[in-house]
Amino acid sequence: MIALDAFGGDRAPGEIVAGALLAHRQGVPVVLVGNGERLRGKVPHGLTVIHSPEVVEMDEPATTPLRRKPDSSIRKIFELVRDGQAEAAVTCGHSGAAMACALHVLGPVPGVTRPPLATVVPRKDGGQLVLLDLGANVDCKAEVLAQFAVLGDAYARAVLHIDRPRVALLANGEERGKGNEQVKQAWELLQAIATREQGMPSGLQFVGNIEPLAALRGDCDVLVCDGFVGNVMLKTVEGTVEVVGRILREEILRRSSDRFAAWLLSGAWRRFRQRTTYDNVGGALLLGVNGVAVVGHGRADARAVASALRFAHGCVQAGLTGQVRAQVGSRLLV
Amino acid sequence: MIALDAFGGDRAPGEIVAGALLAHRQGVPVVLVGNGERLRGKVPHGLTVIHSPEVVEMDEPATTPLRRKPDSSIRKIFELVRDGQAEAAVTCGHSGAAMACALHVLGPVPGVTRPPLATVVPRKDGGQLVLLDLGANVDCKAEVLAQFAVLGDAYARAVLHIDRPRVALLANGEERGKGNEQVKQAWELLQAIATREQGMPSGLQFVGNIEPLAALRGDCDVLVCDGFVGNVMLKTVEGTVEVVGRILREEILRRSSDRFAAWLLSGAWRRFRQRTTYDNVGGALLLGVNGVAVVGHGRADARAVASALRFAHGCVQAGLTGQVRAQVGSRLLV
Repeated sequence: MIALDAFGGDRAPGEIVAGALLAHRQGVPVVLVGNGERLRGKVPHGLTVIHSPEVVEMDEPATTPLRRKPDSSIRKIFELVRDGQAEAAVTCGHSGAAMACALHVLGPVPGVTRPPLATVVPRKDGGQLVLLDLGANVDCKAEVLAQFAVLGDAYARAVLHIDRPRVALLANGEERGKGNEQVKQAWELLQAIATREQGMPSGLQFVGNIEPLAALRGDCDVLVCDGFVGNVMLKTVEGTVEVVGRILREEILRRSSDRFAAWLLSGAWRRFRQRTTYDNVGGALLLGVNGVAVVGHGRADARAVASALRFAHGCVQAGLTGQVRAQVGSRLLV
Repeated sequence: MIALDAFGGDRAPGEIVAGALLAHRQGVPVVLVGNGERLRGKVPHGLTVIHSPEVVEMDEPATTPLRRKPDSSIRKIFELVRDGQAEAAVTCGHSGAAMACALHVLGPVPGVTRPPLATVVPRKDGGQLVLLDLGANVDCKAEVLAQFAVLGDAYARAVLHIDRPRVALLANGEERGKGNEQVKQAWELLQAIATREQGMPSGLQFVGNIEPLAALRGDCDVLVCDGFVGNVMLKTVEGTVEVVGRILREEILRRSSDRFAAWLLSGAWRRFRQRTTYDNVGGALLLGVNGVAVVGHGRADARAVASALRFAHGCVQAGLTGQVRAQVGSRLLV
């Protein structure tokens, strides 16, 4: 069962409930969590509601559900996971509050000190690139970057079914010695882990430093960076998609402003948007906590909410949390 | 006169000489600098050569022209600027060596401790975004980020003719308090400068933190970050252009693999590439040294070399170095 925060997101509860229904029809077991009175008459047949009266607004501090609003839906979804009543928690609400609740309520996996947010980005070769951290931890020491690498590796194996994921550090050049201070130190840590585990099927395959261009082309499966850099990279991808799409459309329509070109573009553009927008991925996964925790986009519509639910469901079915615990335990605690 | 390193770049000297000729025909005064014997018979009518026998290879240390090869072309171009025989230096060779030579030979403008590399990126609104640092300084303190802001402001005024450039710090959110430690401190420094200069025509217009998406849409003119983050952002833009272009082409051709679609795309694709590749900008500018120093792309072909030369020429004609000295002097030394 996936616990969904019905009052998280700019378009809550309407689009959230609609997304829950979409996912429900696709076979994803979902329960809505939120104020039952405010949801009365809005919940379609087949969906159930767990009552949780309080709502955390976007302009409140991240600690609000922990301090001032203990009965908020954004906290309740994680309590349901902790208590075994749900297997995953999904919210499109206040991301800082969601992370605080996940960490406080579920707790970190032993060996993890700073759970990162991860997502997947489409690569040029048709594969998927796991990118982390997306912004949960802005300033990171080398040891924290090494944790991210191990967590990303576990995710790629469990959910993407990649045998030996190629794990890389995001840097400003491929040679050893490139990168800022933290990256240089993390390189040494990861190289040591990879050397120790050489030849083992579960061994970390550390491929060194990588530049964004090579990563987006397909030269690695897991790309590790601190939350500041990862946030910049993810949003640069989003921004460039907008700019580039606009320029390419302008150029196609420049010399051929006829019906055929417009028709060609409208369909292609729709399919292009489907392949490149966040809606497809569904959200960011908080890795390294005891349970599946997905933070969706604040602007999520019903389709994006359904994606986030399917994403969480996939992580549950893959046994992500158990795999993460096994991998982290064998590595970081030794 | 622009001094061009004839032996810098993967395709030197052939494409470099061809690029010099292109720019020369477009009215850019250019002199080739390099080994006269190796250039014999290769220099077209109208171009002159200043002899400088040694060549720095890409796999040599950045300090090679300063220590082991004092007669290298990559060093000579900056000596010509220092001695008043040229107004700008352009190389597509070893970028580390170029920066070391520029700093050592030309020296920094008083008040600047860490000259940054800057370039312009096309924005969605049709404008140009000045991005710096692109990788000259990987680890930067807040004071250094503040220098970048002042230098980027001077560049935007002098070369892009923007009256009061909107200067922003690249961050993972727009609110004050977002960003890593250095960004948070730089925010305070820049806010103080902007407050002090409020109402002055030459005053710094600091618009605070900005995310990549907003910057690429057009919400600022100058985007400041450390060299690690700037390098990641620039190369993410390049990588995303590749990925996105490929996906969009695939989708357009998917349901319409006929001659018309292919024709439509071939022309549009060519114009799109022209608007989005580095060739158009021509290179990165090392700001804050006593002279115009442009580092072109290592893979530059003749067209890209000509762009770099025109770019340098534009900076010279705009009186960039004098403007930078005036702005930095009045700000950072007070």
